Amino acid sequence: MAASPPVIVLVRPQLGQNIGKAARAMLNFGLTDLRLVAPRDGWPNPDAGPSASGADIVLERAAVFDTVEEAIADCSLIYASTVRRRELVMPVVGPEDMASSITSSPGRSAILFGPERSGLETEDVALAQAIVTVPINPKFASLNLAQAVILLAYEWSKHVALAQPPAKDEEPLALHSEVDGMIGQIDEALVAKGYFHPPERAQVTRNTIRSIFTKTGWSSREIKAVRGIVRSLLGPARKR
Amino acid sequence: MAASPPVIVLVRPQLGQNIGKAARAMLNFGLTDLRLVAPRDGWPNPDAGPSASGADIVLERAAVFDTVEEAIADCSLIYASTVRRRELVMPVVGPEDMASSITSSPGRSAILFGPERSGLETEDVALAQAIVTVPINPKFASLNLAQAVILLAYEWSKHVALAQPPAKDEEPLALHSEVDGMIGQIDEALVAKGYFHPPERAQVTRNTIRSIFTKTGWSSREIKAVRGIVRSLLGPARKR
Repeated sequence: MAASPPVIVLVRPQLGQNIGKAARAMLNFGLTDLRLVAPRDGWPNPDAGPSASGADIVLERAAVFDTVEEAIADCSLIYASTVRRRELVMPVVGPEDMASSITSSPGRSAILFGPERSGLETEDVALAQAIVTVPINPKFASLNLAQAVILLAYEWSKHVALAQPPAKDEEPLALHSEVDGMIGQIDEALVAKGYFHPPERAQVTRNTIRSIFTKTGWSSREIKAVRGIVRSLLGPARKR
Repeated sequence: MAASPPVIVLVRPQLGQNIGKAARAMLNFGLTDLRLVAPRDGWPNPDAGPSASGADIVLERAAVFDTVEEAIADCSLIYASTVRRRELVMPVVGPEDMASSITSSPGRSAILFGPERSGLETEDVALAQAIVTVPINPKFASLNLAQAVILLAYEWSKHVALAQPPAKDEEPLALHSEVDGMIGQIDEALVAKGYFHPPERAQVTRNTIRSIFTKTGWSSREIKAVRGIVRSLLGPARKR
């Protein structure tokens, strides 16, 4: 049994036409799970259908979310399609390595794509375990949304044919929502301790913490263990 | 020394817009030699520039020919991008095999693409040594011109390492001794809190904790950050 195909998450997409083109690119290589986070012009968008050139089923099934976190809550392996971010310490992989990891991962994967004009924000990228970057001509690095989608979908499709069944005895990776819950717990505790100081550095520190705990590859059981550890550190010493 | 980049030959292209998009896709992966055979609306075409999104150099240098034979006269290895032709006996290869042959070929190569609506005629395909076909979703095989160009250009670029490989200047992973120090800190704090209870389970729990924190892939800087977090959780709330 192959891993499930990756979810394509368009974060704050601007033009309906580009959503349609992305849907077409997805279906070209067998991807059908499209998720939209806060599309600028609402959803459904009448401009999407014509440019999907027949990939209507992808548009009809598209799910809309308010936040990236909600869109990826049931996913465990998250990639951010963007260029490298100096301010975040995270692996940067090419399309082939991404495809190989997705096909061997036991859980559901997602690939985040940013708005056409500006790309993903640092806060969005910090939700991912890794950045995926297509090695493009550095002198002409203008890759549009549908082209980025088609290149990654194409690489994924190549690996499906070769995919080995995922190792049976591996614990499934924790869902994004579980990781999120743990980070929330740590954040809350740190706020109570006055850790985020000075306040103007708080967001940068939060991004760092998120990226530290997002790339761990922990299972649900391990996330629970870490939450227990944090509770214990916060609490009073236990009577023996 | 790599072989020269393949020539992209658009045979009787219809829309200027699609010629522009193809030029953009080419330049994304470092291809600049565009040749047009009998473009329907003549050349230059005012619709091409805007959709090239800055790849003007490719359009400016584009050469126009009356026939495919003239366009590929100086090329030695010719591929026809199309689906299989029952009436022709010729090899059908995928993008990777094509890219590999092109980069190891001593002469100039060309890839032929047909008109948007109808694709290459049998006579055009017969000029090639092989057909190149992208293995696409058989239930939705609508690949537009620019997408076919970008997928083949991308595969070619992988074979010449045109672009830098993904940046290697990632932070080095923490040394084992640093991970060990962090685990020691956590362990000590947990002992003080009476976390390891009952005592006969302590070793199993310690193994779990070690395996959780050993597989994180954290850098030295991140290990320091986690140690700071643990210190903060243990300490009194900071005065603001």
